Amino acid sequence: MARNLGFFLAIIGLFLGLVSASNWNILNQKKGKYGLQITLKNYCESWRMNVELHNIRDFEVVPEECVQFIGKYMTSTQYKVDSERTIDECTVHMYTCCDFKKGGKDAWIFDIDDTLLSTVPYYKKNDFGGRKLNSTSLEEWMSQGKAPALEHSLRLFNELKGLGIQIILVSSRRECLRSATIDNLVDVGYHGWTSLILRGEDDEKKNNQKFKADVRKKFINNGYRIWGILGDQWSSIEGLPSAKRTFKLPNPLYYVA
Amino acid sequence: MARNLGFFLAIIGLFLGLVSASNWNILNQKKGKYGLQITLKNYCESWRMNVELHNIRDFEVVPEECVQFIGKYMTSTQYKVDSERTIDECTVHMYTCCDFKKGGKDAWIFDIDDTLLSTVPYYKKNDFGGRKLNSTSLEEWMSQGKAPALEHSLRLFNELKGLGIQIILVSSRRECLRSATIDNLVDVGYHGWTSLILRGEDDEKKNNQKFKADVRKKFINNGYRIWGILGDQWSSIEGLPSAKRTFKLPNPLYYVA
Repeated sequence: MARNLGFFLAIIGLFLGLVSASNWNILNQKKGKYGLQITLKNYCESWRMNVELHNIRDFEVVPEECVQFIGKYMTSTQYKVDSERTIDECTVHMYTCCDFKKGGKDAWIFDIDDTLLSTVPYYKKNDFGGRKLNSTSLEEWMSQGKAPALEHSLRLFNELKGLGIQIILVSSRRECLRSATIDNLVDVGYHGWTSLILRGEDDEKKNNQKFKADVRKKFINNGYRIWGILGDQWSSIEGLPSAKRTFKLPNPLYYVA
Repeated sequence: MARNLGFFLAIIGLFLGLVSASNWNILNQKKGKYGLQITLKNYCESWRMNVELHNIRDFEVVPEECVQFIGKYMTSTQYKVDSERTIDECTVHMYTCCDFKKGGKDAWIFDIDDTLLSTVPYYKKNDFGGRKLNSTSLEEWMSQGKAPALEHSLRLFNELKGLGIQIILVSSRRECLRSATIDNLVDVGYHGWTSLILRGEDDEKKNNQKFKADVRKKFINNGYRIWGILGDQWSSIEGLPSAKRTFKLPNPLYYVA
């Protein structure tokens, strides 16, 4: 019995030793480098902030040690409040910015994933961005059409519709997902958009920014006035031609170039 | 004695009533609007995040109820760690991005205030952005040349110098502050820059973004290759012509258009 207990304690000790060694390494490196005593939370928070500042780009996974932190944020009240505030700024802009004209050419552009629909349920089951993206598995999930609405975005969507603004959805989802995407959108309350542009075969060679800028160019050439873009990726709102204003929702889960 | 105690308790009660009424109003409005139970911290954090996402623009003051929150952030370890991470990304970029050539035309552009030098000591005494900017008082403070260095920026500055990169400082400080600015920079460790561009009389009609883009244009026309810009305002890094990459330090204290 005493031998068993000793063995048990040794295992626990080893486990605690490994865990603390791994944290200690991170913190100690950080301390050595910056001369600051920082916590893992400080470190992960600075990672997230620099993703949103667009200083950290092209990441393929969330750093392993921050997966829990990012998962917590994406399911928190704070994520909701941050996003609500973004939507509030869109609304203020719409009521003050623009000289709407008759003729139905005033438009607003939306992303779909993590702008209108949430992929958080998928990432919840897939290590919150800590694993490299498996597009087959993500597309399979999308094809089930079960993504919930981001409620604050639905509110903006309906408000814009009420103002008579044309709503254009531009997503890097592939064309083969069109019918699942429409079903999903309608199912959670989005309807009445003017145009839904998905990525055709020709677009697959372009990166997201070029694809989306080309779409805007076509609409502008057809006489549309684009008053705003709402997206969760910098590549959805950067590049020329642009809109009168752009708005970025927070999203530290993944990066689309 | 009993009357005095009663009076005292009445005053305390009134004070608590006023404080809780004011917080209650904020929280209750928020709850009513979003259907979420949020704290003042949630609210101020979402304000700060949306400033950094460039969704909130042109603000003249930090919202009164968030002054304490912003003051706490600007004097926190988190602000330092966030900024250090920005600098780390600059360093990674410099060592991987660029095809440096002989001839001394490889360049990097820095802002000055809250990029190389900190104005936090000034804002500490001026309600942390909660009061509308008094440029006379700020310029008076700048003319004393007592702004401390942002240590991580000094590290990057020296690293770039070591690589033989030309360092160009572009600031919206006015020309009349030139000698105080030079003294301050040298005093805290910055020396060996190639060019220090301040705002001349002709530039005062331009906004910050136009002024800084025009400066970049001149350097590029003179054969410079600008590999990076580091600034704390979006107007310092947006606009064309740009650089190979841009980096934004956090700064929720004020907004320069």
